[in-house]
Amino acid sequence: MSLLVVGTVAFDAIETPFGKTDKILGGAATYIGLAASYFTKEINLVSVVGGDFPKENIDMLNNHHINTDGLQIIKEGKTFFWSGKYHNDMNTRDTIITELNVLETFDPIVPEEYQDCELLMLGNLSPQVQLRVLAQLKTRPKLIVLDTMNFWMDIALPDLLTIIIKVDVLAVNDGEARQLSGEYSLVKAAQKILAMGPQYLIIKKGEHGALLFNKDQVFFAPALPLEEVFDPTGAGDSFAGGFIGYLAQTKDISFENMKRAIIFGSATASFCVEKFGTENLVGLTQEQVDDRVQEFIDLVQFDISLV
Amino acid sequence: MSLLVVGTVAFDAIETPFGKTDKILGGAATYIGLAASYFTKEINLVSVVGGDFPKENIDMLNNHHINTDGLQIIKEGKTFFWSGKYHNDMNTRDTIITELNVLETFDPIVPEEYQDCELLMLGNLSPQVQLRVLAQLKTRPKLIVLDTMNFWMDIALPDLLTIIIKVDVLAVNDGEARQLSGEYSLVKAAQKILAMGPQYLIIKKGEHGALLFNKDQVFFAPALPLEEVFDPTGAGDSFAGGFIGYLAQTKDISFENMKRAIIFGSATASFCVEKFGTENLVGLTQEQVDDRVQEFIDLVQFDISLV
Repeated sequence: MSLLVVGTVAFDAIETPFGKTDKILGGAATYIGLAASYFTKEINLVSVVGGDFPKENIDMLNNHHINTDGLQIIKEGKTFFWSGKYHNDMNTRDTIITELNVLETFDPIVPEEYQDCELLMLGNLSPQVQLRVLAQLKTRPKLIVLDTMNFWMDIALPDLLTIIIKVDVLAVNDGEARQLSGEYSLVKAAQKILAMGPQYLIIKKGEHGALLFNKDQVFFAPALPLEEVFDPTGAGDSFAGGFIGYLAQTKDISFENMKRAIIFGSATASFCVEKFGTENLVGLTQEQVDDRVQEFIDLVQFDISLV
Repeated sequence: MSLLVVGTVAFDAIETPFGKTDKILGGAATYIGLAASYFTKEINLVSVVGGDFPKENIDMLNNHHINTDGLQIIKEGKTFFWSGKYHNDMNTRDTIITELNVLETFDPIVPEEYQDCELLMLGNLSPQVQLRVLAQLKTRPKLIVLDTMNFWMDIALPDLLTIIIKVDVLAVNDGEARQLSGEYSLVKAAQKILAMGPQYLIIKKGEHGALLFNKDQVFFAPALPLEEVFDPTGAGDSFAGGFIGYLAQTKDISFENMKRAIIFGSATASFCVEKFGTENLVGLTQEQVDDRVQEFIDLVQFDISLV
């Protein structure tokens, strides 16, 4: 199944207890696309960068089967820049700098050749921009996955609720699920959020794993216990990219297959956090991915037969 | 396999966002014994209470196959009393009152009839008392499980380290694993703690599940996502009780069977937190336990075949 990915392509400067980077490649769509590239070769990107964005980065994306015809390059503009510093526990971070730059006036254009995409992954971005992408699609994709964050709940809730009705899978973290629903219990939060429109809800819990809900079922996948989390940036996006990439590869959007996709997404995210930025996502082998998935199987599978 | 349980029998007064109790039955050994009673009928208790401890409670324990011949009753003393208040997130609590009472001078005596116990569960208690129990056993049990907490790491670390060397399975929560090892990563913490003596380590993460480590393997079980956690008191002890009870029932102390025991322990703990104190642990049916275990199976099992 062909995949359309919409989201940011950015520069990040990251500081963690393990070190510090200059401006490196980042952005939700970058992580999503790279993660998905281990599962499918039909990835189409809609995003925006400035004249400062190096051609090598575009080449690298193309080499990962990511079609960048929908990547607008605003020559006179500068690429979106985010800088953040993680605290010692790696679960919390402070944003040091946010320079929206070309993102401020981003008007997404879906190229004609992308119109037949069967899967749409809307990475974290303004709900207005996400809605403008949806409005351009002549045929509704078979599955629309939306990733968003508390920032949009704070400043653009009506637009966010408008797009949430239109998607099939919503992905948020645990704090965001609580904020959106007003419920502390994630089970109750899920029920309320599913009543807002989406058929499936993914609640990402970082190092504590992820939950997949539909109206009647719930599935849980842990995060892999790692010796060291080096840089959590992009973990949620890599998870989403592995998830949707696996669905694209297997051409099956049932709940049972989404469970498998959650495991592949978790495996991809576990690679992401082991190095700075996208460093670990650019050169994985199929064998590495399979070995990592096997670690998940070994981690959680048990054999109980109830009589 | 017969089981010896050593730990506190207490009165608790609990306040949660959902309500407040007067003095109700509590204590680590109480929760462990009740939880284990759904799996084995050979449970032997070593503990201490005061003259204020009602005979009905002892009858109730006996009705759950818990032999109380090793429960000392200090007529002129008062039963250990703890009072605590949980915060809104249920993950943190303040201790309001701790009255050690008869626990202060507790000298455990293992009755002769308990000498052949094959499994020993040392519930949270002073390491000195735990060591005095071990010293009385003529034959080493086949498996010794030790549950402890940060309090003993703070005030009795040398004694704690002395007993840790002597046990097979250590159970602590994530914060305690970090404190004991000086490592933030739970994988690194586990390696260091296993080097201190025990062959297996269980790290309890409350609502985020539990990890089981040995030198070469790791297993993870989630906590069941519940609509409401009513009272977390005793969750860790019920988990330990279900774990050791299942091992006693199945007479198998292999890593593979411990994985199953972790699931049964998690299921038992999930019942505990749905009501105040031991209320939900006194009248479960086998069918309820099996249904709950099936919910765990449905929650985490997936089917991936890597070629």
